[in-house]
Amino acid sequence: MLDLGYDVLSARQFDRDDLTRLTKVAEALEPVARGEVVCRALEGAVMANLFFEPSTRTRISFGTAFSRLGGTVLDTSGLETTAIVKGESLYDTARVVSGYADVIVVRHPTPEAARIIAGGALVPVINGGDGEAEHPTQALTDFFTISKELKASGRTIDGATIVILGDLRYGRTTHSLIALMSVFEGLTFHLVSPEALSMPDQYADIARNRGHQVKVFRTLDEGLAGADVVYATRYQSERFQIDPQVREAAERLRLDAASFRRHAPEHAVILHPLPRDEVFGELSTDLDGLPNLAIFRQTDNGVPVRMALFALILGVADTLTDHFREPTWPLRRRRANP
Amino acid sequence: MLDLGYDVLSARQFDRDDLTRLTKVAEALEPVARGEVVCRALEGAVMANLFFEPSTRTRISFGTAFSRLGGTVLDTSGLETTAIVKGESLYDTARVVSGYADVIVVRHPTPEAARIIAGGALVPVINGGDGEAEHPTQALTDFFTISKELKASGRTIDGATIVILGDLRYGRTTHSLIALMSVFEGLTFHLVSPEALSMPDQYADIARNRGHQVKVFRTLDEGLAGADVVYATRYQSERFQIDPQVREAAERLRLDAASFRRHAPEHAVILHPLPRDEVFGELSTDLDGLPNLAIFRQTDNGVPVRMALFALILGVADTLTDHFREPTWPLRRRRANP
Amino acid sequence: MLDLGYDVLSARQFDRDDLTRLTKVAEALEPVARGEVVCRALEGAVMANLFFEPSTRTRISFGTAFSRLGGTVLDTSGLETTAIVKGESLYDTARVVSGYADVIVVRHPTPEAARIIAGGALVPVINGGDGEAEHPTQALTDFFTISKELKASGRTIDGATIVILGDLRYGRTTHSLIALMSVFEGLTFHLVSPEALSMPDQYADIARNRGHQVKVFRTLDEGLAGADVVYATRYQSERFQIDPQVREAAERLRLDAASFRRHAPEHAVILHPLPRDEVFGELSTDLDGLPNLAIFRQTDNGVPVRMALFALILGVADTLTDHFREPTWPLRRRRANP
Repeated sequence: MLDLGYDVLSARQFDRDDLTRLTKVAEALEPVARGEVVCRALEGAVMANLFFEPSTRTRISFGTAFSRLGGTVLDTSGLETTAIVKGESLYDTARVVSGYADVIVVRHPTPEAARIIAGGALVPVINGGDGEAEHPTQALTDFFTISKELKASGRTIDGATIVILGDLRYGRTTHSLIALMSVFEGLTFHLVSPEALSMPDQYADIARNRGHQVKVFRTLDEGLAGADVVYATRYQSERFQIDPQVREAAERLRLDAASFRRHAPEHAVILHPLPRDEVFGELSTDLDGLPNLAIFRQTDNGVPVRMALFALILGVADTLTDHFREPTWPLRRRRANP
Repeated sequence: MLDLGYDVLSARQFDRDDLTRLTKVAEALEPVARGEVVCRALEGAVMANLFFEPSTRTRISFGTAFSRLGGTVLDTSGLETTAIVKGESLYDTARVVSGYADVIVVRHPTPEAARIIAGGALVPVINGGDGEAEHPTQALTDFFTISKELKASGRTIDGATIVILGDLRYGRTTHSLIALMSVFEGLTFHLVSPEALSMPDQYADIARNRGHQVKVFRTLDEGLAGADVVYATRYQSERFQIDPQVREAAERLRLDAASFRRHAPEHAVILHPLPRDEVFGELSTDLDGLPNLAIFRQTDNGVPVRMALFALILGVADTLTDHFREPTWPLRRRRANP
Repeated sequence: MLDLGYDVLSARQFDRDDLTRLTKVAEALEPVARGEVVCRALEGAVMANLFFEPSTRTRISFGTAFSRLGGTVLDTSGLETTAIVKGESLYDTARVVSGYADVIVVRHPTPEAARIIAGGALVPVINGGDGEAEHPTQALTDFFTISKELKASGRTIDGATIVILGDLRYGRTTHSLIALMSVFEGLTFHLVSPEALSMPDQYADIARNRGHQVKVFRTLDEGLAGADVVYATRYQSERFQIDPQVREAAERLRLDAASFRRHAPEHAVILHPLPRDEVFGELSTDLDGLPNLAIFRQTDNGVPVRMALFALILGVADTLTDHFREPTWPLRRRRANP
């Protein structure tokens, strides 16, 4: 159960009750995330953003989340060039940094690095992505978005059809997604990818073992049929240089407004963990006008979800609204979402 | 007109009334910029400092300005090595970051990048320099400094003689300066540079078309005569390697205490957008003792000017003084300006 | 004496009364450093963390310290690639940054750089390490730790035996340590190193001239005898590539649980400025279970010591407790130190 002092290391540690609780706290924090309400519940608290590889998006999403709760963020990007090259162990780094901060967010290129750091730190650790292994806060953001988007059209996650499209072999967010969503009931997953980039069985089996339907497709027309959610991902272009056949297969799976309208139900919601590759175009910019495209609502959701995690593990989730107040700066300033 | 939700993309978007209003707000904020008064008007607000090329000075000037108003700054330097290399468009980056922040400052090597980012962002965007095109907040700081320095000696901008000295071809701050100052009346501009580094006609014509006098000189004795303001700029040394004749011409235009005293009026004020190149010496350090040298007052002014912009576009300019309070830390601590 | 607006440039500027005063303030701030008490005494103040070389640990220790006092930190790492390459002098950089901040922390690869920066800045400057010359805040942290650890076992610094072990030639923290500790009375220093890495006489003589005993050893059995404190340091591995004999000598001086138990008194305290090199193992991880190993308490101590410096030079040391309040986030969250 999510609680005081908890580490967030894997998407698999959350059960359905956790997700319900997280959703409730994240929803309460949405006005704070948008700057419509000021909340200084964590004033005086310090978060260390411990980044061993560059990742602007994730780093500042965590930074915004902690700042919007009133805390202070210490950024430690570029770590790979300092302590580490001097032969220091991850354990020592973790222990030292935990003397500076009340919570640590870590991003590391090596699988299991977050677990090692959690072993050394005296304070809670949140995994901000460790190599190909896990990226649990992305999975929680994806879950939160799916839940919210389906609710908006009167649907539920239970019984939904979720299409996962793109590089299902190396795309770690798809692995976490299928694992996390499997805590719900009666889902149908469509796995749509070039054959060489199929989802490894170990992940698909999580869904199968929980009684969900898992269907594999190689074309958009079959893959998109009946979709409630279409979750597209980026192809890592370096793989294409190795194999032009994979590239060709990937090109046939590009999603644009025409193919989406032709093959997907009118209510289907389109997600993508971003960045999307606008050169390759796995998710065409001609979708940008469609209300179905939820990719920017999805990235926006990353902030309240991460705020909720901080609030829960630092023990302020139950008293948050006591700290709510009007901002002193007006809020008419925002342009509407185009 | 400067107002809620406004983008600051170009020095040319400001009219004389804007400059008057900005000056008033910036003057009110000077004690806050110096740390003599604490103002937390933007507590809870988040600014994203979106830097696609390194620029410590501009980055921390914006950072100080936003922090001194009580807001939180998210630094995103090193962006060129993360999202961008993954094929993401500026539009997507802008839209995503605008979900994290209430205002975006952007620095980018490409002209018009700030405009593209403003097109994608849901929040106001301030151009912190986009390639050779624009650097409007530097121009506003230069204007504010000229206005203040002239006023201190009982002079006005209207009717003043402004000498612009150095690399007028590639020095974008000189282009913005002549455009911005041209909203005033009856100015005389002396453009003093090596011939190969003359100011392009498109910028000089802005002044001419507004009825100002524009005179071109190649020597200091003629160029400095009658100056109220001398605005010197750095030569980019890579140009000298291409052409030793340009270097020689630039050497003859070095300004030091002796040449300044010989050719310029006693009251003339010396500005420079900094950094000055102390190896080449276009603005000699032997001027450092003269009260005429306003270059450090100029860089100090960057903070209240940027604070004023934030206050205006986030809508707190009219209520700022409500938030003023004494600092809890004493202020005797500062050494006087040497 | 430590006072308003004072620069902290060298460990040698502190006398015994300074250390007593610093200790008192640092002790009062320990609960704030641990996040058990919130203190916003420096709200509205700005610190510039001016790093001309990468150093995550020192940078975020200073950052935490200033943040825990309520101030805002502007990080300026990567300076070497911006203003400096454009030919700007350290003096100009210092003067400019001092217009943005109320206090400057500087880290620079060149000896005396901190002094030059203090000459240009209008605000107090703290030396965060300038090349091989000085690292005074590390020395103060080491002193504070030794004082606290000895007190815990009913001992005093006066009369203690302090073993300094490792690379005493290039390890600047050992130079500052011997200089700083020499303000106490009747110490015995054991200098234990490979002959090629002996402490230069200029540093050992500081202790000798103050009447302390200085003994040089080449083996652990002699070196550790009678130790109250064992201060180990890292070997810079690049030196080993030049001379395999030095490596061999260093290997014989590795400290592990077995050699420590065999040669050192039961109450001896082990320090290390970190990072320790876990590949070479000058301080074995098999010591991690021993209560004698104080290296993580030592790094933790860096925060209250740096907070005390900020409080003293910004003039809030005497009123700190007026600003103390309960955090709104609970503190049960911390795991105990393993």
